[in-house]
Amino acid sequence: VNDRSTLQVQELGEQGLLAIVQQFCPADLVGDDAALLTVADGELLVVTTDLLVDGVHFSDATTSAADVGWRSAAANLSDLAAMGATPIAITVGLSLPGTVTVNWVEQLYQGITDCLQPSNTVIAGGDICRSSVITVAIAAFGQVNPAQAIRRAAARPGDVILVTGIHGASRAGLELLLNPASGKNLDAVDRSRLIQAHQRPNPRLDVMPLLRAVLSPSDRVAGMDSSDGLADAVLQICRASGTGAMLDRNQIPMPSSFDDWLTPEQALDWALYGGEDFELVLCLPPESAKALQQRLDTAAIIGTITANPQVLLEDSTGAIAPQILNLQKGFQHFQQHSN
Amino acid sequence: VNDRSTLQVQELGEQGLLAIVQQFCPADLVGDDAALLTVADGELLVVTTDLLVDGVHFSDATTSAADVGWRSAAANLSDLAAMGATPIAITVGLSLPGTVTVNWVEQLYQGITDCLQPSNTVIAGGDICRSSVITVAIAAFGQVNPAQAIRRAAARPGDVILVTGIHGASRAGLELLLNPASGKNLDAVDRSRLIQAHQRPNPRLDVMPLLRAVLSPSDRVAGMDSSDGLADAVLQICRASGTGAMLDRNQIPMPSSFDDWLTPEQALDWALYGGEDFELVLCLPPESAKALQQRLDTAAIIGTITANPQVLLEDSTGAIAPQILNLQKGFQHFQQHSN
Repeated sequence: VNDRSTLQVQELGEQGLLAIVQQFCPADLVGDDAALLTVADGELLVVTTDLLVDGVHFSDATTSAADVGWRSAAANLSDLAAMGATPIAITVGLSLPGTVTVNWVEQLYQGITDCLQPSNTVIAGGDICRSSVITVAIAAFGQVNPAQAIRRAAARPGDVILVTGIHGASRAGLELLLNPASGKNLDAVDRSRLIQAHQRPNPRLDVMPLLRAVLSPSDRVAGMDSSDGLADAVLQICRASGTGAMLDRNQIPMPSSFDDWLTPEQALDWALYGGEDFELVLCLPPESAKALQQRLDTAAIIGTITANPQVLLEDSTGAIAPQILNLQKGFQHFQQHSN
Repeated sequence: VNDRSTLQVQELGEQGLLAIVQQFCPADLVGDDAALLTVADGELLVVTTDLLVDGVHFSDATTSAADVGWRSAAANLSDLAAMGATPIAITVGLSLPGTVTVNWVEQLYQGITDCLQPSNTVIAGGDICRSSVITVAIAAFGQVNPAQAIRRAAARPGDVILVTGIHGASRAGLELLLNPASGKNLDAVDRSRLIQAHQRPNPRLDVMPLLRAVLSPSDRVAGMDSSDGLADAVLQICRASGTGAMLDRNQIPMPSSFDDWLTPEQALDWALYGGEDFELVLCLPPESAKALQQRLDTAAIIGTITANPQVLLEDSTGAIAPQILNLQKGFQHFQQHSN
């Protein structure tokens, strides 16, 4: 006899499991072969998808089921935010071993739901099947006014580069989870804040209304999110736009707790290459960037877009020679790079 | 030194692999965090998702990479067809071991593309990451006029039940692949046709224009696809609609080659429970069904919707006593049922 907390998926069967996860979906959206949703007339449909795989993107050591759910939803909502879009719904494809507990699945869906709730995004169905490895495949749908879509290729020389928040916090949180003995100088509040940044990243859907308030309809904004790292985001934008960039290493915002813990080089490495901070990296005219900064106190201007196609990391104090950034240090899922 | 046919995903790296699969996507749809698509004003967005997992839904013994791609796309397009929708695009989430060859991935995408081509559906991006097991997670997006959406819950007593084609062929094709010695009486054309039904099922997107031609705008149609089996489809429709059904075992269309191979009971079992035939099961007034049948020569009327909530399988010759069908025999992904 199994009590509720140890009941396994294989004991419940597919129909029983579907009945449980459908409790997290609005009743009018499930029960057919597909879900019917409304896109406002004149708006474009925005679609994206992200996979999370057990052992690659998460592990029992650092991530609860609820956190896996939150992060898989957050990654997709962040992609919509990076397009300037408003989310409508997601679908959830879940494959898992039959030995996973039903409680784990419920916690996963609870984490997804918690992340979706602030933006009123709904789960519009999905698929569940058995597999030897847990995989969460989410597709997300949103809508955007065509004139307000944010594209990577729209950066122009003279734009400034604005980030919507600090970088390196998610990587630091992961470090504290993997090596609890590290960061001895940090107080409990700092530790908890960094761990939270890793486990519960916030998709920056809050930025879009602020951006619309400071831009005129004809203003151009380029950008993407920093989920694969800040350096990667700047490099991708520059490649798509046919530009380069100059970044000032002294202007990249990082958690203040890094000062008591990391060397400047280590801190900068995590900020540039750590990834999973899920901030937006926006390129826009200087006046617009300053106006946005006044409404968003976590925002920082970290550099400028240049006609010279290189992406340079400079030191405005002059103490350190400029470095050229490239994609080689980015996150490579298929190679021997642990992250 | 590796030649092209043995080059592995892990040797190419994530960026190299992305560059290859992006060749299968329209250039204007990839390169941003999400893809921008158009939904016609006044139409509803229709979304669905399906997972295929190596060892569960396919295996090297029975399925080439191109066939895996075809079937994963077909399953999603069939869900859209079952809603009365016109496809717009899909996203592809692919997780796989680094030892899979690049050629396998290219063949997968070629199979997806071949299945999408007749309906002009595009691949609007996706995600790729490593995993210990190959998983293909596709989400599909379509559009439908709200008045023409086909729902499961819309069946009413007095409707007839129409299937758009034969059932049992996919299950028979699987049998021939798993046990090549079986079906000794079949000729080469019959064998090839059954195997084709399993490897390259056709989503019935062709049915919708015919259905619209025979229906007036106010006519109601209920339905779903038969991917989880014909019995399952009828049971799901009846459960959603609060009805029952009477099916005539002599009217269920099956491959003519079953006559030389299977007992009537075995043939009926595969037709009702084999699954993966990807036909549509539609419930509509008798006159509309007959008009549709005249335009679609593979269609057959197999029974009627009843107020009595049971789903009965009857023998119109009176030789065999009626049976009650239930969901227990349906496909159970998490239990010890090999399919």
